[in-house]
Amino acid sequence: MAGYVSEALVRRLPAYYRHLQSLEAEGVVQISSKDLGERMQLTPSQIRQDINSFGGFGRQGYGYPVRELREHIRAVLGLNLEHRMVILGAGRIGRAIADAAVFQADGFVTIALFDSDPDRMEATAQGVPVYGTDQLEQLLPGMYVTVAVLALPADAAQKILDRLYALGIRAFWNFAQVDLKYPRDAVVVNVHLSDTLYTLGYRMQHPDSL
Amino acid sequence: MAGYVSEALVRRLPAYYRHLQSLEAEGVVQISSKDLGERMQLTPSQIRQDINSFGGFGRQGYGYPVRELREHIRAVLGLNLEHRMVILGAGRIGRAIADAAVFQADGFVTIALFDSDPDRMEATAQGVPVYGTDQLEQLLPGMYVTVAVLALPADAAQKILDRLYALGIRAFWNFAQVDLKYPRDAVVVNVHLSDTLYTLGYRMQHPDSL
Repeated sequence: MAGYVSEALVRRLPAYYRHLQSLEAEGVVQISSKDLGERMQLTPSQIRQDINSFGGFGRQGYGYPVRELREHIRAVLGLNLEHRMVILGAGRIGRAIADAAVFQADGFVTIALFDSDPDRMEATAQGVPVYGTDQLEQLLPGMYVTVAVLALPADAAQKILDRLYALGIRAFWNFAQVDLKYPRDAVVVNVHLSDTLYTLGYRMQHPDSL
Repeated sequence: MAGYVSEALVRRLPAYYRHLQSLEAEGVVQISSKDLGERMQLTPSQIRQDINSFGGFGRQGYGYPVRELREHIRAVLGLNLEHRMVILGAGRIGRAIADAAVFQADGFVTIALFDSDPDRMEATAQGVPVYGTDQLEQLLPGMYVTVAVLALPADAAQKILDRLYALGIRAFWNFAQVDLKYPRDAVVVNVHLSDTLYTLGYRMQHPDSL
């Protein structure tokens, strides 16, 4: 397996994975750099350069093998491993993530949710338990989780991140609309839902910008 | 108001708006291109070039006025208008969006949800009504909505988009994990939640890529 890929390719990897999944679901066995480029809005030469960086997929004239390429990128993304996660915030977003089959299929399995509101202690529809946030230090060490999802208000997110970091968690999927501070050995990926809505707002105002 | 900005700047606009909102909330009145660049991980010259393209904000030596700049970008993004929207899919994601104060504050107000499951007809916690999808053609024309949120399974999204387009809707905020086909005068902005999870997976596998 190629050890490292460029930062720009890292940003494109999720789109590669998503498009290859769709192609496989459509029954496509091989795809040319030209056809894949059209789907992904990248030039054929960019596609070839990206895929060459993985090594072993250069079959000019035959196209790339969809399933093998998808499986390779799946491994690069670490999706063939199980990632045990906890969700901080048992509101609708937290519960939706906990029960979503799509994230489980990619190896991200929710072990428990935590919430500070005693009225939110009911397990999720799929039976994932909810605990009080005051039990975090007591329960987390036995859960063997590596990922925390922050699905709570912006003003609570930083303090919870600090507590989770102290408990050994280094990977955070952040849905709170706030820029968090964290040590260099932690990974925080932000979901800025409003950003996509702002883009929609702009496109609606400037239809000829399309 | 500057009529048009570059495609690259369009992609950066939501981040500008988000950071300026945070700065204003922190009570910051003026900010230099250097300080704003550090927050946004852009070079000071990129910041100056971006903000110059709006016109009227070039006060070298004084920094940029945070509130005025935030308000200008708000107008460029069309967030000072009310956008009436419907949500297709009354599951947890759909209901969370309908009731989210954060989207309402940006002018995106949910008028109704539609779902094909008769067991999901209960209004949201905030009282937004849910109707059967079979009533779409009958009810939508009287709702004066301009935006549709697709919060339903991937296999249902394309058919619903086609029906909504036929009813005059041209702006779609898509949460379904599927690449939709649509005419050139429509705007579709995709929320690919899994993409951010894939990025997290990659960073966890390659901590020295940070």
